[in-house]
Amino acid sequence: MNKSPNDNNMALGGIKVVDLTRAIAGPVCSSLLADMGAEVIRVESPDRDKDLANQPLADTAMKLFQRNKKSITLNMRTEKGKDLLRRLIKWGDVLIENFKPGVMQEMGLDYPNVKEINPRIVMVSISGYGQTGPYSGRAGLDWVGQAMGGIMSMTGPPDNPPMLAGAPIADISSGVFAALGAVTALYRSKSTGSGQQVETTLMDSIAYLMGFHIAKYAFGQDIVKGGLVTPGSGTFLTGDGHYIVIMGALAQHFPRFAQLIGRDDLAAAPGYQTRAERMEHAEEINAAIQAWMNTQTITVVETALEKVGIPFGRVQTIEELMKDPHLIARNRIVEVEVDGQKKIMPGPYPILSDTPGTIRAPCPELGEHNEEVYGNILGFSQDELTALKNDGVI
Amino acid sequence: MNKSPNDNNMALGGIKVVDLTRAIAGPVCSSLLADMGAEVIRVESPDRDKDLANQPLADTAMKLFQRNKKSITLNMRTEKGKDLLRRLIKWGDVLIENFKPGVMQEMGLDYPNVKEINPRIVMVSISGYGQTGPYSGRAGLDWVGQAMGGIMSMTGPPDNPPMLAGAPIADISSGVFAALGAVTALYRSKSTGSGQQVETTLMDSIAYLMGFHIAKYAFGQDIVKGGLVTPGSGTFLTGDGHYIVIMGALAQHFPRFAQLIGRDDLAAAPGYQTRAERMEHAEEINAAIQAWMNTQTITVVETALEKVGIPFGRVQTIEELMKDPHLIARNRIVEVEVDGQKKIMPGPYPILSDTPGTIRAPCPELGEHNEEVYGNILGFSQDELTALKNDGVI
Repeated sequence: MNKSPNDNNMALGGIKVVDLTRAIAGPVCSSLLADMGAEVIRVESPDRDKDLANQPLADTAMKLFQRNKKSITLNMRTEKGKDLLRRLIKWGDVLIENFKPGVMQEMGLDYPNVKEINPRIVMVSISGYGQTGPYSGRAGLDWVGQAMGGIMSMTGPPDNPPMLAGAPIADISSGVFAALGAVTALYRSKSTGSGQQVETTLMDSIAYLMGFHIAKYAFGQDIVKGGLVTPGSGTFLTGDGHYIVIMGALAQHFPRFAQLIGRDDLAAAPGYQTRAERMEHAEEINAAIQAWMNTQTITVVETALEKVGIPFGRVQTIEELMKDPHLIARNRIVEVEVDGQKKIMPGPYPILSDTPGTIRAPCPELGEHNEEVYGNILGFSQDELTALKNDGVI
Repeated sequence: MNKSPNDNNMALGGIKVVDLTRAIAGPVCSSLLADMGAEVIRVESPDRDKDLANQPLADTAMKLFQRNKKSITLNMRTEKGKDLLRRLIKWGDVLIENFKPGVMQEMGLDYPNVKEINPRIVMVSISGYGQTGPYSGRAGLDWVGQAMGGIMSMTGPPDNPPMLAGAPIADISSGVFAALGAVTALYRSKSTGSGQQVETTLMDSIAYLMGFHIAKYAFGQDIVKGGLVTPGSGTFLTGDGHYIVIMGALAQHFPRFAQLIGRDDLAAAPGYQTRAERMEHAEEINAAIQAWMNTQTITVVETALEKVGIPFGRVQTIEELMKDPHLIARNRIVEVEVDGQKKIMPGPYPILSDTPGTIRAPCPELGEHNEEVYGNILGFSQDELTALKNDGVI
């Protein structure tokens, strides 16, 4: 653990975040802020274990995104609990929630109410479809966001049913966009003293990631499901069983690539000289590349391509990624402590040179910071805390 | 076009950005800042048309991300051009570049030099692998980032070679993370008066998006390529030919789902009552769901699932996405003008309630703002501008 002597030396040092989130998108948002130095108070149900019964595996893994946060318990279904929450909202700079739209309103804590409690606060709401509109009441889950946002229709082999991208990118990108919105609104409020509501949705986030394809569509350009494989570019398999992506189709790359595989003829023969001509022979050319690959090891291929300057990337498994020498050389792999065990993860991101994100604290135990938060911040005595606990409020 | 009377009423109003970016990731970053009100000066080669020869299709589509920016021409290969660039860096609050590492250094404009010119500036560098480390010198392209960052190994049918996610998410997410870094550093500099360097890479961005899977890996949990299909959850095809994702496997959903398709028995029979038991019959159960789907239209299925509260999402094509009634009802579809033609795109994102992003200006013509920027900001006379132009500097 890299203990920071003073969080105020961090980019978001001094920012106070009340974090009501669960599942994936919300905790990713608050994790990004916490890594940059914000004081994040994670508000959990005293019955967390009961809540988790539905998706214990997801929640266990998400513990790695709870580093750097404090945990308090609060029963939002009690009047006293709602009162405590209002006091925390008054104290905070940012409130983050990813309940289904309507839940905050039922608690009397939709944005107009929150603003009345604390006009400075930035309220971040993440949901499947947003607080308004015809789909607003529908449940949002990562797969649903990937379907509705357009990326599934473009993922997978062309003749196959649509597939998911290989990570919950609707969830995670919604958390990233929400963090961008939160910091943007905080930047604004530094001048004006006023907060505002920031909203991201699983569907909108995927639609934004689809922006380049949407732009191509707007200009009537072809969009190829699964990616356009061109002569010299694609995914190949080496003799020792490693997949590698190679981008060797460009005019400045292909002749060198053809030479490398001992097939100068593929770049020089009549009918093969321009990229457009080679497109007519894409299958034949990529079969020739694959034939060469069959006789090579991944190490030889990588070294050879690097030497001649043709872009490539090994298809890394998660296991390979976590041992990648480049990530290790750049200190991009960090240890996160959960229940006394150390786990490795990619480090705080994006990378800031002067005030980099840090891992300062493990995933908190449920309610670990009740005394600190309710005592020091809200001013309760030990007796009052015991009473709150006995009454099932915290 | 929604003309904003005063950019200073926007979240990033008053922020001055010198934008040296090309391709996808960089322009996405500056587009996010421009949409939120920053004054972005896009510095382009006077020979842009020559530079574009390699990937004209990509560049045409990217014009939709150049809205709200100003365009000036500058030949960075001339000494005079470098001098002008240094003067712009002195003026700006943010400098964004996505050259291959080493290019800025060759121009004497790596971060230590930039900092000397303007200690306040936030320098954003986006690359394939970063400014340091063993892979630093390698070319970075979206596919390469998706391969090295780990998502390709998890995308596509389990028995297939690895595939790409259906959008350039290494590029686009690197732009989003870079915007988050830029605003975070700007927030910090508002207190300290000092800038810093922000770095994102295609590989790191994908690795971050893989964070949930990496966490599952850390806890020894199964990660299923292509997504785990469970009984009641998966992608189905309706009788009228629409794919739909349904998440009906959870204990609280499945009995309702079984009833809906007239197969109560699948939830009630011995050996089918718990989710674990149903997992043994996943193929049989999902075949029964598909058999029901064959006799239904997408509209009937959507209405029925919404009524019983089972999460679902139609697999939308880009064409459907751009006509989606929910996006339209929420004003999430905007018009962007390029070369006098209006194109539609998802709107500025994330959504801010008080200072929302806006589309205020079309994609600029090459050098459209030379006079405004070189004249008003750097103070050149008309004669001096003509000389710079004749000398091939601008």
